[in-house]
Amino acid sequence: MRDNQLVIIKIGGNVLDNPLVLKQVLTDFARIEGLKILVHGGGKIADVMLQKLNIKPVKVDGRRISDEPTLDVVTMVYAGLINKKIVAQLQALNCNAIGVTGADMNILQAYKRVSTNGTDYGFTGDIDAVNTEGVSNLLKMTQSIVFAPITHDKKGQLLNTNADTIASTLAIALRETHDVILKFVFEKQGVLSNPHDDNSVISIISYHDFQAGKADGSIADGMIPKLDNAFNALKAGVQSVFICGIEGIKRKSGTSLIMNELN
Amino acid sequence: MRDNQLVIIKIGGNVLDNPLVLKQVLTDFARIEGLKILVHGGGKIADVMLQKLNIKPVKVDGRRISDEPTLDVVTMVYAGLINKKIVAQLQALNCNAIGVTGADMNILQAYKRVSTNGTDYGFTGDIDAVNTEGVSNLLKMTQSIVFAPITHDKKGQLLNTNADTIASTLAIALRETHDVILKFVFEKQGVLSNPHDDNSVISIISYHDFQAGKADGSIADGMIPKLDNAFNALKAGVQSVFICGIEGIKRKSGTSLIMNELN
Repeated sequence: MRDNQLVIIKIGGNVLDNPLVLKQVLTDFARIEGLKILVHGGGKIADVMLQKLNIKPVKVDGRRISDEPTLDVVTMVYAGLINKKIVAQLQALNCNAIGVTGADMNILQAYKRVSTNGTDYGFTGDIDAVNTEGVSNLLKMTQSIVFAPITHDKKGQLLNTNADTIASTLAIALRETHDVILKFVFEKQGVLSNPHDDNSVISIISYHDFQAGKADGSIADGMIPKLDNAFNALKAGVQSVFICGIEGIKRKSGTSLIMNELN
Repeated sequence: MRDNQLVIIKIGGNVLDNPLVLKQVLTDFARIEGLKILVHGGGKIADVMLQKLNIKPVKVDGRRISDEPTLDVVTMVYAGLINKKIVAQLQALNCNAIGVTGADMNILQAYKRVSTNGTDYGFTGDIDAVNTEGVSNLLKMTQSIVFAPITHDKKGQLLNTNADTIASTLAIALRETHDVILKFVFEKQGVLSNPHDDNSVISIISYHDFQAGKADGSIADGMIPKLDNAFNALKAGVQSVFICGIEGIKRKSGTSLIMNELN
């Protein structure tokens, strides 16, 4: 392991919604040597809470649109309940983590997404600045950061930002000072050549394959923004990017991304 | 201002429940030079959320007793909603704060309070260890910490701990390396000689006065645990301890505590 290696793991709802899976994932995360960041989404817990409070969740292109009551609930669930439960569990595993959002230390400054074509994105934040020095110093101090997908606009407003985007943005910001390995952990074992066959994991996907897959429809729906985020990171110089299942946290598995075809 | 001065401000529900008062308090807090910690409680927001979710709040001696659903709600509200809204507002005031709980960096390790005389205290945490080095390093890095009153047992369990206790515990832990000023900001302007007269603020209260006030009933109810926490800090060597209204954040006002009568 190089001294400046940094592993960034993004975990999805499938991990958060199952306590046993989460426990395994946190155990594997705690065992990663050196610097590491865990970025979590919200899972079903936010939806359940919204339902209990009679707030209707609205989604556009698979992403949640936050009006003010929704933003309050996701802030509570992501930055409060999920983030602190994960931190407490990591502490029990002797992993001295700190849980943060983008507002803390101004790590991720964002702006409220502008409405286009009549679509109001509510309090959705698009990131425009990273406090790279701040997050580097924090990593030096604690080695382990748990990131909730909340940002802010530096004018006092919290914003809801996609967790995949947060993971790739952090990876890109830290690539110059760290050897970054970025892993998107989700409910499949990797990118599938046939979306209906869980065993059709592609071990290496090039940017060209991604474009071809979008064209022939084998890559669709939620996989498109996920791969967009993943390839953005790779294009920007992040050393290794993977899309994988929970097995991929402790060993190389799933789909490895490359910019160009191997010759 | 000495280089190692640390101001710890604990704010109560009256501040959190009024956005205009909160804004003023955060403006004054942001202007404090040097190292500072803001410890907040929950205010009425937690009670409102418990009510909306049909969870009945239970209190013993003015302190909330947390069963598991209650603990989840207070974790969401304290560590999520309130903590991150405060951090975002401080960022807008160019105060580069970080929001934490006792679980983060294992700053405050606690144990679940043991049931006595048939009273089950639920997930109430009594602090038994402070990661003084961790919190000192964090202060060195960010200068400003916002503390939500949640701790953990280092075995994966979050716990609910009184915010006054957190403030005095942090003050005591940091007194050896810092010149600590501890201020408990609450709805009155200070300790009152007559609880029914808001203008009867005692400017200096000795430990002897406190005992006498308890005996004659002029100090009662919520003031007793507040003064217990405050005098504990003073006894343990914290340099200055005040109980005051929001005016007390920017200038010396309210009640100053002393161990012995002036001769």
